[in-house]
Amino acid sequence: MRAAQRLLEYAAQEGVTACFANPGTSEMHLVAALDAVPQIRPILCLFEGVATGAADGFGRMAANPALTLLHLGPGLANGLANLHNAYRARTPILSLIGEHATFHRDNNPPLATDIEALARPVSAWLKTTTRAEAIVSDAALGLRAARRDGPASLILPADIAWSDIEPDTPGASADHSPAPDRHSKIDSAAQALGARTVVLLGGRRLSARACAAAQRIAEKTGAQVYVETFPTRIERGGGGAPLRRLPYLSEMASGLLANAETIILAGATKPVAFFALPGRPTELAPPEAALIELFPPFGDPTEVLEALAEAVGAGSRHILTAATTAGAVDSNAPLDASGLSAALAATLPEGAIVSDESNTLGLYAFDAAAGAPPHDWLTLTGGAIGQGLPLATGAAVACPNRRVVALQADGSALYTIQALWSQAREGLNVTNVILNNGAYAILKLEMMRAGINAQTEAAAALFDLQRPSIDFTEIAQGFGVPAQRVTTVDELSAALRRSFATPGPSLIEAMFK
Amino acid sequence: MRAAQRLLEYAAQEGVTACFANPGTSEMHLVAALDAVPQIRPILCLFEGVATGAADGFGRMAANPALTLLHLGPGLANGLANLHNAYRARTPILSLIGEHATFHRDNNPPLATDIEALARPVSAWLKTTTRAEAIVSDAALGLRAARRDGPASLILPADIAWSDIEPDTPGASADHSPAPDRHSKIDSAAQALGARTVVLLGGRRLSARACAAAQRIAEKTGAQVYVETFPTRIERGGGGAPLRRLPYLSEMASGLLANAETIILAGATKPVAFFALPGRPTELAPPEAALIELFPPFGDPTEVLEALAEAVGAGSRHILTAATTAGAVDSNAPLDASGLSAALAATLPEGAIVSDESNTLGLYAFDAAAGAPPHDWLTLTGGAIGQGLPLATGAAVACPNRRVVALQADGSALYTIQALWSQAREGLNVTNVILNNGAYAILKLEMMRAGINAQTEAAAALFDLQRPSIDFTEIAQGFGVPAQRVTTVDELSAALRRSFATPGPSLIEAMFK
Repeated sequence: MRAAQRLLEYAAQEGVTACFANPGTSEMHLVAALDAVPQIRPILCLFEGVATGAADGFGRMAANPALTLLHLGPGLANGLANLHNAYRARTPILSLIGEHATFHRDNNPPLATDIEALARPVSAWLKTTTRAEAIVSDAALGLRAARRDGPASLILPADIAWSDIEPDTPGASADHSPAPDRHSKIDSAAQALGARTVVLLGGRRLSARACAAAQRIAEKTGAQVYVETFPTRIERGGGGAPLRRLPYLSEMASGLLANAETIILAGATKPVAFFALPGRPTELAPPEAALIELFPPFGDPTEVLEALAEAVGAGSRHILTAATTAGAVDSNAPLDASGLSAALAATLPEGAIVSDESNTLGLYAFDAAAGAPPHDWLTLTGGAIGQGLPLATGAAVACPNRRVVALQADGSALYTIQALWSQAREGLNVTNVILNNGAYAILKLEMMRAGINAQTEAAAALFDLQRPSIDFTEIAQGFGVPAQRVTTVDELSAALRRSFATPGPSLIEAMFK
Repeated sequence: MRAAQRLLEYAAQEGVTACFANPGTSEMHLVAALDAVPQIRPILCLFEGVATGAADGFGRMAANPALTLLHLGPGLANGLANLHNAYRARTPILSLIGEHATFHRDNNPPLATDIEALARPVSAWLKTTTRAEAIVSDAALGLRAARRDGPASLILPADIAWSDIEPDTPGASADHSPAPDRHSKIDSAAQALGARTVVLLGGRRLSARACAAAQRIAEKTGAQVYVETFPTRIERGGGGAPLRRLPYLSEMASGLLANAETIILAGATKPVAFFALPGRPTELAPPEAALIELFPPFGDPTEVLEALAEAVGAGSRHILTAATTAGAVDSNAPLDASGLSAALAATLPEGAIVSDESNTLGLYAFDAAAGAPPHDWLTLTGGAIGQGLPLATGAAVACPNRRVVALQADGSALYTIQALWSQAREGLNVTNVILNNGAYAILKLEMMRAGINAQTEAAAALFDLQRPSIDFTEIAQGFGVPAQRVTTVDELSAALRRSFATPGPSLIEAMFK
């Protein structure tokens, strides 16, 4: 049996069901092996950034990691930006990266490059397989690392993939390392809780139960609770705790934390600014504030938060607030951030998954949707734009019975617009809402924050997307996704409802005033 | 004066005239500085792979390197694949890569990653500026290295770019290292020339004079002459030497080299297979053949080839063969590779620049165009697909009075399709010919060459671009480029003539049978 086939059989046996692929010549035997392993669904992506972003969306929503299949160093390179986001999200992914045959590498053929160097900065685990007999044990190590820590990269030389090996080549033994004891941290967190304490939530998945526990802790102790600025995944709505995120603008975030004596990190990392700007803070917590890491960013802090709630006598029941019944949105007002948010909150179906790369235009959408039916919200964890459409694509593969909504800023959409085609091919239930204001609006804001108040001529040109204007409706149709433009709040609401009721993908180009 | 401005002033003084940019917050002071340095034209690209590919096209055609302006590690990552191609082409480029402020880096903010690790595999030169006062001398070193060796990467922390420095901070002193002596190699090459000698041409630029000298050498000595498989830039047509390229298929290439006793490398590297495949050669020259490196791959081998021609008594005059007068192409035949080639050869205007990423469909186009008026031909030097449209974009910025033709396979076009928008915005004279056969045709071929003769079901799905079919005409229009579909040879000829006569970009979607 070819080693390539043995590898895929092992992955299937471990629960892998999807492979986001853009293969090339050096991956031919992996492509051929897919036929023998029908449990793994190959999904062709027209660009590798779509494949890695989709694997991120899949991994955030599914019980098991997806594979990516990438072509040598340049194929990996095209996928790096979204692997960076996945690395920051700690999403379980196993990337299979083709490499030249071991005996060809020293010839330095045109496509040769240092694949390990490129992969290392975005890999929680990295290995180049050096013997065909090790392919299953390497995959086992990679899958285990992916589940524990985030993206894993397995580099496979072509001649190793095409080698014949024994069908029963064993995998690695299971990981029996004991879970770390968090008891002492619960005690110290419980002692620290009070009006000058901030609980910062994060981690790979923030469950509705975790959010409810945090909310109960806040109500009992007077502590403030925030979700980290860009959470990997948060379950919310349906009357669950309407938690706020720590604001993106560092001056606002540091203001909210200014009085904190203690910051309890439950899955979140120490709060820092996204960017340094002249004269603005980069560490958001006061220097004298104590930090308690209640739970590391690699998993699900639900149990620890529930234990902490019990420890402070905040009960263990879920307290559901009444779901906000959003009023009908019926307005001929031109679209702006609040109109968009209202339309979304009023229409979002139960079980929706929101992929949020809305940048400036989606400012209020998260808060507005807090009262909508239960849904998941996924954000841009690593700041590498071009995540939203691929992430939505992968989430829709993972959850075929749920509606995915991509809230997508126009400039960022254009980095990985090819995702639309994979949505059309696979018939995925994705509603792509392109927020078209014809600009890199966030950069105009950042320019001012950098102290450059008069917008310069160069900046006016480099932040503008209107000369010529971009027609996302035509582009979407070119990729096989039905699309329409809307200009008012009620047109948007109607288009959203229609899309939610129609299987398969669609694109709504929301023209902002 | 801000260090960012001093840097750009120095670059302008050194002849830099273009900056292909996709900046972010950490590059704001470089953006603002562009206003003060109007000699450098900022060209916004919607995706970094467009910026780096355009800088490659610019650098292949212009006297001076272009800048790229990239946003941190993820922005660089998006540009890596085309920097890989530029690195293989040895194109002079100076990439300015933003980095977090020095005092913010240790906070490990979301966008932080190891930029040097990502840049190193594609950089002939690499430096992170550590003091504002060194910004000009670092840029001087980078520009010098770019001119000599290929892509240079200068990483600029934001606080260094926004620091104030003295306006007259000096650059580095000029490079006075002597040119290497090639005399002895001319003698040994002259002695080796004969019927069992192959001269392999390559380098950064193959001038018409270099090709003519090689042709004279072949006629005088009986040697065979080939251009390397993927030349960076070759000047041809207009009755110049109709040289053939070494074929891409390793079995064909090794057949042509099978009887060679000596291979003279004039700007080319040792011929090797693009990929290893089971049972096929990876070194294309016979193991016993002697290799003589007449000229390294970093420059222009014209003078050395002319000296060699003189040394073997092959004269020094340019011998122009009669230009082939291409017959009128007037056929209702459906498009195939030979019809495309005939239409192109019959219509190509004098001074055209062809960016060739046509893969399987352009197989005959290079040979067919040998008799066309004088033109330059640029190819996919590093095998990282998605080069063609950006390369054409940059070549058109470098040469505004010449017509650029992008011969572009459909699958590859979709990696960097956003290039069309920059063409529209800048009003560039680019004719984009998309060769639409609805497939990754080259992969079907490679699958057979890999010994997998029955196309597997997975491969049939992963190499197919027809479910749904992609409408490049709509996509182009969405990006602001006028477009049309053609299905026959005469429709294509007419569309080419119309495009060549019309200023600005256009796209022709050539539907292959």
